[in-house]
Amino acid sequence: MNEFELIASLSRSLPSNAGVIAGAGDDCAVLDSGQAGRALLFKTDAVVEGIHFLPSAEPESIGHKALARCLSDVAAMAGRPLAALVTLALPKSFDPEFIQRIYAGMNRLARRHGVAIVGGETTSNPERLLISVALLGEVARDQCVLRSGARDGDALFVTGELGGALAGKHLEFEPRLAEGRWLAEHFSIHAMIDLSDGLAGDLRHLLARGQVGAELLARGIPISRAARLRARTGRSAKPPLLAALTDGEDYELLFALASRDAVPLADAWRKQFPKLRLSCIGKITAAPGLKLRDEQGVRALEAHGYVHFS
Amino acid sequence: MNEFELIASLSRSLPSNAGVIAGAGDDCAVLDSGQAGRALLFKTDAVVEGIHFLPSAEPESIGHKALARCLSDVAAMAGRPLAALVTLALPKSFDPEFIQRIYAGMNRLARRHGVAIVGGETTSNPERLLISVALLGEVARDQCVLRSGARDGDALFVTGELGGALAGKHLEFEPRLAEGRWLAEHFSIHAMIDLSDGLAGDLRHLLARGQVGAELLARGIPISRAARLRARTGRSAKPPLLAALTDGEDYELLFALASRDAVPLADAWRKQFPKLRLSCIGKITAAPGLKLRDEQGVRALEAHGYVHFS
Repeated sequence: MNEFELIASLSRSLPSNAGVIAGAGDDCAVLDSGQAGRALLFKTDAVVEGIHFLPSAEPESIGHKALARCLSDVAAMAGRPLAALVTLALPKSFDPEFIQRIYAGMNRLARRHGVAIVGGETTSNPERLLISVALLGEVARDQCVLRSGARDGDALFVTGELGGALAGKHLEFEPRLAEGRWLAEHFSIHAMIDLSDGLAGDLRHLLARGQVGAELLARGIPISRAARLRARTGRSAKPPLLAALTDGEDYELLFALASRDAVPLADAWRKQFPKLRLSCIGKITAAPGLKLRDEQGVRALEAHGYVHFS
Repeated sequence: MNEFELIASLSRSLPSNAGVIAGAGDDCAVLDSGQAGRALLFKTDAVVEGIHFLPSAEPESIGHKALARCLSDVAAMAGRPLAALVTLALPKSFDPEFIQRIYAGMNRLARRHGVAIVGGETTSNPERLLISVALLGEVARDQCVLRSGARDGDALFVTGELGGALAGKHLEFEPRLAEGRWLAEHFSIHAMIDLSDGLAGDLRHLLARGQVGAELLARGIPISRAARLRARTGRSAKPPLLAALTDGEDYELLFALASRDAVPLADAWRKQFPKLRLSCIGKITAAPGLKLRDEQGVRALEAHGYVHFS
């Protein structure tokens, strides 16, 4: 049983109540805030030493990543983050200054996005450091974007460049909060997800939720310089396109909107975010499954994002 | 640097924003919900294998405890829990059925208190199981009870019986949610905290926050049968009174209210909660410090709740 199978089995019988607008299975849970026109976003995410970061990483970067992962999920719902709680599970011997520097990285990112850090707890995890962040955010009810709304014929877009994030970006990425909110304010975004498991893997989540398929255009996929460099120097055995499809930890936004909005979006984006690339990478199809179109034609895409402890 | 010193150092410079009513340092963070007269409660808590439970514990009890600890903190603010997220950090080899039974215990408790479980995540923690629960609750603004309001002359009360929780109660306790809300609805509770580190330790938090002291009455402290039994059978080296003061994991409510309310409270409590003991255990003093009065007189209480990784 892998991660996704276990989650699916556990998700089948979770208790719910009248306040739940969207429960398990999206980037954040969406809850009734009691305020007309608004909803709460609720998310938790953990980073573990040796898995999400190496002990040699800069502590400020570890703190940055721990919070940024949650912020990226709020971005994918077009939300605004409000407050975070931090659970520090500390190994037997730890350097208080190292922990303080982790907090410095987290605090700096929180301040930049107006997030309050309102407590948390410390506990023991003798063998390794684990940091779990719980985040509360809010969103306008009519602008909240779920994973589930992709429709046949929609255009698929992705922000930034993909692949090779392990070379550094996974510790330094900037969550696309302003971009996510701008998208939902100015366009009818049908479905959105942030890329943590890799384009192919996360797109499959979007397709499953929308009960649709997709055809990706190989030359439309924005490949990062890091992915090309890692392939060229032999640091990764993956060709750059495969890296962009499957490396994971890109923390970019992947979204679908009506194809008639594609050109207006591309134009408006260039004015609003001139420094951040936006790429149309393909389209949603009624037929299920994920296909890739390149010079040789169209073929089923077997590669998928990596599944933890599969 | 022990747990409390590290937390104090980290708490000094946390980012805040206009939505924060009470940040780090209380049982829950209190946040503006945007709804007049209401506030949100936000809390996170983790249990770790080998520290908060043994691998031999019933999985349903582990799940129960993981959620119940957060619920106990909501109870201590007189709040109502709404929704929880669960982070499962799984060891290298895990039994899916064991995890499903953990969820069964958590789900049962959640249903009993109307709590929705709205997702979370699984990750790896190779050496041991760790479960972190994030909880969102709500409270009427004018009934939310902080740790900080204890005043000179207040009577100190505690629910239930204390000590010896490791014999079983720490895995089975029922969070005092109905009791916490009833207290705040019917009486002016000045300060409240739930007992996790032991009466002496948690009372010190309450006193520090209120900048007051306290005098406990030794024969007023309700000692559990388990604490007496563990002392008698040599399973614990602590005399029963010391166990009640310092064992920890009682998850009862400790609170302060005006002494003129003490008798009306005791009368009303007996009618409302006939099966749950309520004890007046002493009084708040203007002079700082914690004192214990017994047959020999009054002496400073040096014993304190255990401090993690001190």
